[in-house]
Amino acid sequence: MNKTSEKSFVPLDLDSFRDESKAVIDFIADYYKNIEKYPVQSIVEPGYLSSKLPGSAPCTPDSLEDVLNDVNEHILPGLTHWQSPSFFAYYQAGSSTAGFLGEMLCSAFNVVGFNWISSPAATELESIVLDWMGKMLKLPSSFLFSGTGGGVIHGTTCEAVVCTLAAARDKALKELDGNWANINKFVVYASDQTHFTFQKAAKLVGIPPSNFRFLQTSFATEFAMSPELLRSTIDDDIRSGLVPLFICATVGTTACGAVDPIADLGKIANEYKLWLHIDAAHAGNSCICPEFRHFLNGVELASSLSMNPHKWFLTNMDCCFLWLKEPRFLIDSLSSNPEYLENKASKSNGVVDYKDWQVTLSRRFRSLKLWIVIRRIGAENLMQHIRSDVSLAKKFEALVKQDDRFEIVVPRRIALVLFRLKPKQGLDGSELNRKLLDAINYSGRAFMTQGVVAGVYAIRCVVGATLTEERHMNDLWSLIQEKAQLVLFQCSQ
Amino acid sequence: MNKTSEKSFVPLDLDSFRDESKAVIDFIADYYKNIEKYPVQSIVEPGYLSSKLPGSAPCTPDSLEDVLNDVNEHILPGLTHWQSPSFFAYYQAGSSTAGFLGEMLCSAFNVVGFNWISSPAATELESIVLDWMGKMLKLPSSFLFSGTGGGVIHGTTCEAVVCTLAAARDKALKELDGNWANINKFVVYASDQTHFTFQKAAKLVGIPPSNFRFLQTSFATEFAMSPELLRSTIDDDIRSGLVPLFICATVGTTACGAVDPIADLGKIANEYKLWLHIDAAHAGNSCICPEFRHFLNGVELASSLSMNPHKWFLTNMDCCFLWLKEPRFLIDSLSSNPEYLENKASKSNGVVDYKDWQVTLSRRFRSLKLWIVIRRIGAENLMQHIRSDVSLAKKFEALVKQDDRFEIVVPRRIALVLFRLKPKQGLDGSELNRKLLDAINYSGRAFMTQGVVAGVYAIRCVVGATLTEERHMNDLWSLIQEKAQLVLFQCSQ
Repeated sequence: MNKTSEKSFVPLDLDSFRDESKAVIDFIADYYKNIEKYPVQSIVEPGYLSSKLPGSAPCTPDSLEDVLNDVNEHILPGLTHWQSPSFFAYYQAGSSTAGFLGEMLCSAFNVVGFNWISSPAATELESIVLDWMGKMLKLPSSFLFSGTGGGVIHGTTCEAVVCTLAAARDKALKELDGNWANINKFVVYASDQTHFTFQKAAKLVGIPPSNFRFLQTSFATEFAMSPELLRSTIDDDIRSGLVPLFICATVGTTACGAVDPIADLGKIANEYKLWLHIDAAHAGNSCICPEFRHFLNGVELASSLSMNPHKWFLTNMDCCFLWLKEPRFLIDSLSSNPEYLENKASKSNGVVDYKDWQVTLSRRFRSLKLWIVIRRIGAENLMQHIRSDVSLAKKFEALVKQDDRFEIVVPRRIALVLFRLKPKQGLDGSELNRKLLDAINYSGRAFMTQGVVAGVYAIRCVVGATLTEERHMNDLWSLIQEKAQLVLFQCSQ
Repeated sequence: MNKTSEKSFVPLDLDSFRDESKAVIDFIADYYKNIEKYPVQSIVEPGYLSSKLPGSAPCTPDSLEDVLNDVNEHILPGLTHWQSPSFFAYYQAGSSTAGFLGEMLCSAFNVVGFNWISSPAATELESIVLDWMGKMLKLPSSFLFSGTGGGVIHGTTCEAVVCTLAAARDKALKELDGNWANINKFVVYASDQTHFTFQKAAKLVGIPPSNFRFLQTSFATEFAMSPELLRSTIDDDIRSGLVPLFICATVGTTACGAVDPIADLGKIANEYKLWLHIDAAHAGNSCICPEFRHFLNGVELASSLSMNPHKWFLTNMDCCFLWLKEPRFLIDSLSSNPEYLENKASKSNGVVDYKDWQVTLSRRFRSLKLWIVIRRIGAENLMQHIRSDVSLAKKFEALVKQDDRFEIVVPRRIALVLFRLKPKQGLDGSELNRKLLDAINYSGRAFMTQGVVAGVYAIRCVVGATLTEERHMNDLWSLIQEKAQLVLFQCSQ
């Protein structure tokens, strides 16, 4: 009697695998076809789902038809449709047929490439794809495996920042004779525009929150970090007996798309021997185009750089590239070699064991997805994709500028347009624009979010969802105008 | 001119999405059909892939046919086939048709449910599925949303351990007047069998490595942690002015499957007010069966519990359930509320924002996968699946016991059989078994790994790959006998 016949079911039967998978492909294609019919932002009430699903697991199997019906009836209404062409919120979550195919293969092989031997292809393809991408970004060879550096694919920027912080911390602790108590002296620097992830990561690795410096930015510099302020803050900290450790610079901040001056910050980092990390999560994708590459000028002075293909590189969630000039500091901090993972290849030191480059042991075969995206789309089309989105953002910005009731809050750098209704006499600008944003989002016809810079509340329009075309931008602008008229009328009553 | 016509390509065209996805489904079904033809452990040499792929990205698209050909020719040989029925290494990576369908939908919707509003269904389904699973495990209601607790789905155990350690750390810091310098006093406890992840996580959150206590275990207790030793070690640390913080207990350790005595450790944790986390990554899955539930006896005394459906619950990578009795400590440690994520639902405090329960901001819609696995398979079949694997492990153990040349090193608890060739006069046991394991793995007909307990090198046979049937266990045993004869002959020369 084999295992199959002992069971009342076969968890992976090839015929039903083929049939059911293809049925789900059709379900997904229909979802994409109908995606414009759903409200972009879900309009369900908190707790909506618990009344629709049973309180405990079923004893016996439900049919695929029942499950897909429930997805249609109960799950879809509760989704905020990130793949909708009218999704202009946060930073987008890119997708494509190629990215989806890559995810399918990754999930089907289901290998766990924590060390080289556990799937050599998973490790080696990752290193190759990191070099491909690094070359597309014209990174110096000091960041490439084919040069003197290297990299790893994490799930998200948060993980990349946690790991680089830990690497910098442990490098510095070693230099301070390994006395762990020095952890309380380390100081980290960012701007007040830096993603909150940095703060979370620094606290996670044990840096005291009192040693976080969030340098003030302003309209004058379009919210870029000030090198002068950085230098004077570092000097102050040194005078106080503290140990400056880490600078997190951003290329394309979340609220307004600000770009920190990498070259100037890099010079200071090198002079004071701090670790400089560049978080280019969103805007970094655009740097494959020569006309945007200048945002990374000075990258050769940084210690590490991260960017998320799952944002703007047509790659389904999740993946974050992290390149480092000296991966050994990451490995020193994160490696461990239990007996149960021992193997000849690892002992030879001739291979990469990616478990030592990340927080977790288990890891998905993400490089396969990236490799298929890059091969199926090609570098030229990837550039074209970025350019097309930037061009739509430009056109949208022009529409906003043409309307006297509106203003651009911070000049557009790439594909994020930050705008607002101009405050009117007697009307609070924040309140006015909050009402406008609510009216737009509650219409279900588009979804945007807000950014607040130097106290000014503005509406963020991020262009870049895969399915967005010019007509969606025009629809968005009509919607904004329609709701603006309504809100202005209501407020004037 | 719309975006589509501006581009030379359409990244998500519905017709080609359907056709290409179905072609990849067929490719995957063929892979599974032929999976027994590949060497289980890859036999490529380090660096094999770089000579086969170009050094930089293609400018123009390659055809799907070319890409799939390259997967066949260059990637498959470099995979260690975790889905092979003859994969008995590490702990397995479970998969199923249902798990794959769930991954497809997750990847297609590609929503990023970091807070409730960004996709209410993603948040609410996660809470529901955690309660379903908690009830299957007969967890006390203090761990369930329907009771007084709650949970979150992380990618891996490592993430769960990092987060619970941070929660315990920040709770304790608060109790010590928020003086961050106390971080140097915190002590964490585990056994010398605990997964290395714990050590890595504790260091990551800033606990000084000199304050890690790895309590010695032995054959006498089948490598379970000793409550007496734990108590005396805690007492010693208190006398030294240190602050005992956290105990990590394991249900089913990696090397030998040891089960720590949860109830006894729980009493100590409560008496001394330490955070007790239970890592039940692999064996926890079996606790849905009444006959294995006793491994979790005493769970009501713990602060948190994690277990990985991606191991033994027919769920493709990645997912780790984490339940907590008091989620507020996790949230206190990990939450942050930047203006650009502000929304009415979050402000109402009536919803879960999962970004505050994990390291990262971005997160995949993993609950959809779990929900589909549980619904399509059903609780009874899931139990049957576990029982079938345990029954195969038992039969394999019986085969080993019948052969005088072999011995069981640590009694089997669930589905991991730890065995070795008995040392022979003049032959080192480690060397002998290392040779045997190498011979088995190099044959390509099966893949196992080693475990070392109290200095004894043994071979681990983990039963539980989805496609494994009784015939594969019989083949494995024939292979072991064949290679044992060869190795014993060589060593006796």
